Amino acid sequence: MKTLFYPDSIAIVGASNSPTNLAQIIVMNLINWGYGGRIYGVNPNGEEVFGKKIYPALTEIPDEIDLTVILAPARTIPDTLTQCRDKGIKYVIIETAGFSEFSSEGDKLGDEIKTKARKYGIRFVGPNCVGIVNAEHRMCLPFAPLERWEPGNVSIVSQSGGVGLSLLMWLAEHNLSCNKFISIGNKYDLDETDFLRYLMDDAGTEVIIMFLESLVHGREFAEVARKGKKPVLVYKAGGTGAGRERAASHTAALANDEAVLDAALRQAGVVRVSSINQLASFARMFTQPKMKGRRIAAISAAGGYTVVTADHAERRGFVFPKLSSELINQIQSRVRAGVIRISNPLDLGDAFAADNLLFAIEKCLQEPQIHGVVFINPRRPDQLYAGPLSVMYRNIIPDIEKLVLEYGKPVSTGVLGLPATVVETRGSSTLPIYPTPEEAVDALASYRDFCTRKKRSLRIPSRGRKKLKTIKNLLTMCHPQSRLGVQSAGGFLTGKKALDIVHKTGLRIPKMKEVKTLREALDAASALRFPIAAKISSPSIIHKTEVGGIRLNIKNLKELRAAYRELDEIRHTKCPDDKTSSIFLQDMTSGGVEVLVGGRQDPHFGPVIVFGSGGVAVEVFKVIAIRLAPVSRQEAREMIAETRGSMLLEGFRGSPPRDISALTDVICKVSELICAFPEINELDINPLIVLPQGRGCIAVDVRIGIGEDKI
Amino acid sequence: MKTLFYPDSIAIVGASNSPTNLAQIIVMNLINWGYGGRIYGVNPNGEEVFGKKIYPALTEIPDEIDLTVILAPARTIPDTLTQCRDKGIKYVIIETAGFSEFSSEGDKLGDEIKTKARKYGIRFVGPNCVGIVNAEHRMCLPFAPLERWEPGNVSIVSQSGGVGLSLLMWLAEHNLSCNKFISIGNKYDLDETDFLRYLMDDAGTEVIIMFLESLVHGREFAEVARKGKKPVLVYKAGGTGAGRERAASHTAALANDEAVLDAALRQAGVVRVSSINQLASFARMFTQPKMKGRRIAAISAAGGYTVVTADHAERRGFVFPKLSSELINQIQSRVRAGVIRISNPLDLGDAFAADNLLFAIEKCLQEPQIHGVVFINPRRPDQLYAGPLSVMYRNIIPDIEKLVLEYGKPVSTGVLGLPATVVETRGSSTLPIYPTPEEAVDALASYRDFCTRKKRSLRIPSRGRKKLKTIKNLLTMCHPQSRLGVQSAGGFLTGKKALDIVHKTGLRIPKMKEVKTLREALDAASALRFPIAAKISSPSIIHKTEVGGIRLNIKNLKELRAAYRELDEIRHTKCPDDKTSSIFLQDMTSGGVEVLVGGRQDPHFGPVIVFGSGGVAVEVFKVIAIRLAPVSRQEAREMIAETRGSMLLEGFRGSPPRDISALTDVICKVSELICAFPEINELDINPLIVLPQGRGCIAVDVRIGIGEDKI
Repeated sequence: MKTLFYPDSIAIVGASNSPTNLAQIIVMNLINWGYGGRIYGVNPNGEEVFGKKIYPALTEIPDEIDLTVILAPARTIPDTLTQCRDKGIKYVIIETAGFSEFSSEGDKLGDEIKTKARKYGIRFVGPNCVGIVNAEHRMCLPFAPLERWEPGNVSIVSQSGGVGLSLLMWLAEHNLSCNKFISIGNKYDLDETDFLRYLMDDAGTEVIIMFLESLVHGREFAEVARKGKKPVLVYKAGGTGAGRERAASHTAALANDEAVLDAALRQAGVVRVSSINQLASFARMFTQPKMKGRRIAAISAAGGYTVVTADHAERRGFVFPKLSSELINQIQSRVRAGVIRISNPLDLGDAFAADNLLFAIEKCLQEPQIHGVVFINPRRPDQLYAGPLSVMYRNIIPDIEKLVLEYGKPVSTGVLGLPATVVETRGSSTLPIYPTPEEAVDALASYRDFCTRKKRSLRIPSRGRKKLKTIKNLLTMCHPQSRLGVQSAGGFLTGKKALDIVHKTGLRIPKMKEVKTLREALDAASALRFPIAAKISSPSIIHKTEVGGIRLNIKNLKELRAAYRELDEIRHTKCPDDKTSSIFLQDMTSGGVEVLVGGRQDPHFGPVIVFGSGGVAVEVFKVIAIRLAPVSRQEAREMIAETRGSMLLEGFRGSPPRDISALTDVICKVSELICAFPEINELDINPLIVLPQGRGCIAVDVRIGIGEDKI
Repeated sequence: MKTLFYPDSIAIVGASNSPTNLAQIIVMNLINWGYGGRIYGVNPNGEEVFGKKIYPALTEIPDEIDLTVILAPARTIPDTLTQCRDKGIKYVIIETAGFSEFSSEGDKLGDEIKTKARKYGIRFVGPNCVGIVNAEHRMCLPFAPLERWEPGNVSIVSQSGGVGLSLLMWLAEHNLSCNKFISIGNKYDLDETDFLRYLMDDAGTEVIIMFLESLVHGREFAEVARKGKKPVLVYKAGGTGAGRERAASHTAALANDEAVLDAALRQAGVVRVSSINQLASFARMFTQPKMKGRRIAAISAAGGYTVVTADHAERRGFVFPKLSSELINQIQSRVRAGVIRISNPLDLGDAFAADNLLFAIEKCLQEPQIHGVVFINPRRPDQLYAGPLSVMYRNIIPDIEKLVLEYGKPVSTGVLGLPATVVETRGSSTLPIYPTPEEAVDALASYRDFCTRKKRSLRIPSRGRKKLKTIKNLLTMCHPQSRLGVQSAGGFLTGKKALDIVHKTGLRIPKMKEVKTLREALDAASALRFPIAAKISSPSIIHKTEVGGIRLNIKNLKELRAAYRELDEIRHTKCPDDKTSSIFLQDMTSGGVEVLVGGRQDPHFGPVIVFGSGGVAVEVFKVIAIRLAPVSRQEAREMIAETRGSMLLEGFRGSPPRDISALTDVICKVSELICAFPEINELDINPLIVLPQGRGCIAVDVRIGIGEDKI
């Protein structure tokens, strides 16, 4: 990859001296940036551009070429790749648009390019991108004119060229500068994960910001982010609408693309921002001294802003510790007319002189119990601070910068004023400065979460298949192609078979009999204990309640007879062709709280585990926690705690606390199961009954979706 | 109020020529603004300030005074008010701080001032504020230096002076200008509702923006906002933490201050913004042509931004209609290399020239099916648009402004660039221009909601007490002071008595017997039908389940005997002193969905109605809808629809649809009840069982909290 970012020679295919030619801008940028390597234009029509000779073909260039940049008609690219092979060029950037994003012909052309590049061992960026900038190497390849900047410590990966160029500007606004810029476009070959890996090891990069419309190798991306030490800030677009229709099970419906992505990025310690310009503005915060906890002081000379800030900060999980009485006395002694009550948040309305504010900020940074400060500084245009006010209102940003270095704690500052005032107040400061109190708080909250995050392994354990041989056998038996397997489309396994599989992983299931005739049902009852439950079992019935396929609280043989007859009729009406359908009878489990534990294979993120609480609420109210599987006991406990439904488990309105420890076990075991068996597409234990403390959990109903092509 | 905003003479109490005197800035502002009336300083030390004579007391001024502004030590203010009375001054602005916000002595002083002013018939603004600016009258009273501006059409009411001054700046940034500015401070007398009423009738004001930390006469405020035609934008601070502890019932816990405030403002058509600077930036949007629906086009030259915008717009309830094929052809014909797929959102990546963008915007505005346009315009510094690019990239904001006027539809524009670029691109335009795509969408969404809002009456109907005489009698009988009333603290009414009250309003309740002995219980059973439910009834038990006070599904006399004995023991253990406690037996109601309908008296907003669905979920998952009572059938239906729990009522997973029409009735009736009887502090019907369609609802359990001092 080093060659891609530090080439000694670059060929620009498509450059000409026609006034409307865009590729010539690449040549112009390289010259303006003082690129130290050799530059060659390539164009069938020859001539020259900005004094650089244009060759009719790559193969005609009498020099070794490290990198080829293509901004020529799409149809000519396969041929250019052949020239690259002949010339021994290993890295190509394709800036040309018009592929899969445009038409099916473009799609075909894309496939051709992918195949050729793979065959020739060529790695490429794009197509449909604006290329790469490496400020360290004075290499600027976008076809938009850019002025050279000194390399900084932030690197950008952007799926959209336009957004990437905006990010460059916004970095500059915050006195940050880009080290490496990569516009990945359609990412037919090199993608965000490749560049994340490179930038994690890149000495010049300290903060990585990314604009993504998709995240293809999600698991790998999360793992690379997790392992690396550098902060990764991501804006992920394209979150609405997608991935809803194909959800068959509860788990799949709940753990849709967006929810899994969010969980995965959180697990990996990736910072997800919610507004595009925050990629740049938050990056500034991520260059500050570490934030070691959530206790802050908020300081402003405008009382209204302390209220706004405290409000928002509480919402974002910050805590305002009481200030020491010594500190309060020191500040109080500076107050002009003694008409402001000193507390935290600190309203310095009547002691608003710059020196007083600075004094308060320093005193707060000195307090060992305070991890950071939010300072809200409304500023009006300078000409309004006339006479005696000019001293009182001087700009203290440079002084705060020194305090931050001295005390090693972050200060997030809101400078509220006209854009020009904000720019002027910021000057060349490296402090994080925001135009609203809300952003100052949000940026600090993201940074706190990053600094205090717990790292978890996202690796899928080596498959303990030997131990789980019985399950493997059961799954094989149930495979659609096997004689005993599921018959219906979709490959769903339900009823006793499915319960048996989770039982083999160590989960408790109720006493149970599968029956196909009334006689069998009545016989079976003697082995069970009234009250019992009767349910239809058929892989073709996904939601039993929808077809009325469940009878609970059957108290005696008479009721059982009636229930059986009803269910049998439904069974024959709803799935007449399913010879495997049956009715199963279970001991009723009472005294528990119903939860859902499920897992599924995500196409991008691999095995995923889902916990949901609240019975029917799990679906209606979406009270769930999601993680990439496997999870540790600690993580499983966190999943339970983060759903509001955990209130129900801890003993709600006089009910006994439930066996959260056993539930934790179940979550871990299911997470291992879904990791060990990629052939299990999805799995729902719904409901799992969590009994009172010490009495465990019982899986009452399970549905397993099996991948048709996976065993 | 006219005198307050258009006085012919103003006295400034506290002004001196000492260099640190703040009150002198008020005099300076008035002079600089060219205020046309007479100005007098007042200070025991006399002398003069900026050429205006200072009088030792108000009473010494040889002129009539319309308005007195006080910025003198708090302790002197009572005496100043006496002078005002003697001088016949009717309006006072107290800018001095140091009252209830500071200490209990300040609080006492505040009370003295309130009492005196009331006695003397003096209306006042503040204390603890920066006063009023009326740009139309060249009157500028804050003690911060302000440069004169031409009056515009936005008026500001701010509880914080500092925030108010920021808002002035932010208006200017958006080429808006303030007409009247009122800093209300501690609002001991005149408050936000008084000024809202004034500004609604004020010819110079078209948009009203407010920063509030509290909203005291909430109901009246909402009613004034609802009746008026002008948009009111509110940022309400102080939302966290408050009002939680005193919640006794479910309804009170759910409908806390913040939730009620939010519901009330929505009902009144008030726009609530979530970030402080949006008060100004959104105000610009509210001066645009009306938005008649939610169908928009999004246009950008950067593909990434169309994705971001569409994402966020969908989240905010916008719809992207398909463009007509004629329109697509017209745009397609302009595309440079034919490599962009034209759809809505419109990515003009390869047809990015300014004229093409303008063409697309105009075409979209012409489409009758489109109600507005979001245009995302990344702009880099001008010097980068050199040569041929300079024409392609010209600033089209002035052209868009003309289109907006021509077609009468709003265009919300995101100009993404450096602050200076945004300012320059905006120029003197009256278009709403935002620095991020998200804000451009959010502003348009707020405006759409305002333009398409439905107005509802918030008036409490005249009490139909005669009709409800029976209820009145029942309530009186149950009053703590009456012989038959509730005995316990808090005045709660439960069990049969409470059910009887809601029954009188026309609600169905189950067949029921109240018993105090086992004998009575067994006798009662014959009048009921097994299965039955048995519950403890005692006003001192608020949550029956917490004490295990409920037995359901009692199938026969044997089970009833056992259940009675258990409950009787609990009753005697948990409320030994409550002679009114009993056990009541009810027919079980099956086949329904459990919901909650409740009401309460809010101290600021009066009667409030709450609907919650999801059984236990209502509390755990907070799935509720709140309105100021009374509500129409239409509103009641909207309440049901807006909770996710409505899925359960409409027929979830094969269950039959429930009687939503009957539920709607219940909500209306309870909302009338809570309006008619202010002595009912709070009322919970929980659960109300909603039976299948056509079979109505049954109130199974009710608790009524009665105000001790209200009957």
